[in-house]
Amino acid sequence: MQAHLIALDWGTTSLRAYRLGDHGRVLEQRSLSAGIMQLPSSPRMIAGELCSDGFELAFDEACGDWLDAEPNLPVIACGMVGSAQGWREAVYRETPASVSGLSSALQTVRSLRGVDVHIIPGVLQRSVLPNVMRGEETQVLGVLAGLSATEALKPLLIGLPGSHSKWVQAAEGCILHFDTFMTGEVFAALSNHTILGRTMQRSDAFDQAAFDLGVAVALSADGAAGPLSTIFSCRTLGLTGQLSADAQPDYLSGLLIGHELATLATLQRAHHSELPPVILLGGEQLCLRYGRALHACGFLHVTVAEQATERGLWQVALKAGLLANIPLEV
Amino acid sequence: MQAHLIALDWGTTSLRAYRLGDHGRVLEQRSLSAGIMQLPSSPRMIAGELCSDGFELAFDEACGDWLDAEPNLPVIACGMVGSAQGWREAVYRETPASVSGLSSALQTVRSLRGVDVHIIPGVLQRSVLPNVMRGEETQVLGVLAGLSATEALKPLLIGLPGSHSKWVQAAEGCILHFDTFMTGEVFAALSNHTILGRTMQRSDAFDQAAFDLGVAVALSADGAAGPLSTIFSCRTLGLTGQLSADAQPDYLSGLLIGHELATLATLQRAHHSELPPVILLGGEQLCLRYGRALHACGFLHVTVAEQATERGLWQVALKAGLLANIPLEV
Repeated sequence: MQAHLIALDWGTTSLRAYRLGDHGRVLEQRSLSAGIMQLPSSPRMIAGELCSDGFELAFDEACGDWLDAEPNLPVIACGMVGSAQGWREAVYRETPASVSGLSSALQTVRSLRGVDVHIIPGVLQRSVLPNVMRGEETQVLGVLAGLSATEALKPLLIGLPGSHSKWVQAAEGCILHFDTFMTGEVFAALSNHTILGRTMQRSDAFDQAAFDLGVAVALSADGAAGPLSTIFSCRTLGLTGQLSADAQPDYLSGLLIGHELATLATLQRAHHSELPPVILLGGEQLCLRYGRALHACGFLHVTVAEQATERGLWQVALKAGLLANIPLEV
Repeated sequence: MQAHLIALDWGTTSLRAYRLGDHGRVLEQRSLSAGIMQLPSSPRMIAGELCSDGFELAFDEACGDWLDAEPNLPVIACGMVGSAQGWREAVYRETPASVSGLSSALQTVRSLRGVDVHIIPGVLQRSVLPNVMRGEETQVLGVLAGLSATEALKPLLIGLPGSHSKWVQAAEGCILHFDTFMTGEVFAALSNHTILGRTMQRSDAFDQAAFDLGVAVALSADGAAGPLSTIFSCRTLGLTGQLSADAQPDYLSGLLIGHELATLATLQRAHHSELPPVILLGGEQLCLRYGRALHACGFLHVTVAEQATERGLWQVALKAGLLANIPLEV
């Protein structure tokens, strides 16, 4: 089937490449570890020149053969590739952000082989405490593009759990407001670099009971002491024989996610009479954890979205006129 | 002047030794880095035997010459030396804890030179989320011993800021309840092992304005998002040019201490019509930070205690009858 677009989701630690056909259908996809903080470095011939530029090398690995076969395919990218440490800086656009706004602000870098890579800017929210995202905005727009007209009108919360969880409030196709919680990175720092890690025993299996206990503690009266205090119970429940070493990692995970979502629920209740529906976007295991904790916090309508990144990249390319040869579609 | 007691404050990373005279007056004191996690290891002759035991070596370094001169001096110790990883485990005593309770539960280990070391047990609070301390209980009892009879009757909050800050509620000479906040260790883990550290520039000077800003943010409406969220502003205020790299460490310190104390104030207000007086115990720089933040949180009566450890060790030794040859005193 004919391709119309090469779409890149290029973050800090990974680079995902998609060859998209009619209606943005995924014809082929690849995942490389060539994020902007771990670019390839072995020089190689590209377009007749010996090249040692990490971005060029990664780009060539990701889709050089696709472009050899179809040199006129347009290329779009989102994520940290557009940061100050990226291939070319695409200056943040401010909230509210929409497909139209972002598609009119693409930053272009011409690759060695002469193909332009169109980079979607990140989004900046100028609140008292500013917030930023790069890459997540495109995923969110992908989710919004998949909604029915009725759904799109209502307030909606889109959650992107991860190292830095993002919680995005959207309505009418726009990103209105978002918050960041450093939950994933804090979990890693506590587990690997504090006394809490010393009594933990890691396991690949998910200890659901330990996780749920952590969530319950965060939501309980004792949780009012806040995460700086409750995390110490990971150690003390171990000392008193109430929490085994192999239950401690998932207990800590539940505690931190519980604190994140309890706060989120409080912030939402301050503005809405009832908690809005939630759409989660992320890895299966992480969405499972967040889904359990969201239910415990009173969020009743939680769904998980798929293929949001590809869809978002497609929508922005479409609106930017990069797909000029195919008919417009909603 | 004649000595009556050798008192050891023996923690994880340090060992402080005191030679105490009449009324517990400090005749001589030493500070060694021989905490229980970094004991000396070079074998040496002690009491005619070649010894390679780290605890014996540290003990000998700390006060061997004092005992050579006065072999009958009693020895008392508090801190992690009584933990499961210590020289001899002194099982936790439960709250409420007093000088009488702890002095009747000393654990003894006989050193190579034949001198008994009396170890004060730590304190365990069996709440839903248990709490423990080792060493701090002795410092707190030292503070309580220094109060007037009237002061001792009233509710009082004693703060021991540090890696694991302790907040102890005391009245009538007893430790009634305490909370732990892992603020210091979380600060270190965030600064050294997350993205926040990458944009920070360390400085030895205290940036008071940055610290106060962090405290103010934690206490503001935006602070309601909790520390997992507000800490990200350390990075984003840098990205928007509002917070310089060298202001970021003290801003983060203010944020975390602000969250700790805002929570403490909320917990206190749930039980008392007005915030109790606070006595701080700790390093000068840290007490300065906590003093500023406590005032911002509405704690109006804040003082700093000194020599609490020596006084606590003396009081417990006295009550335990280790100072049998000198007259009892209050």
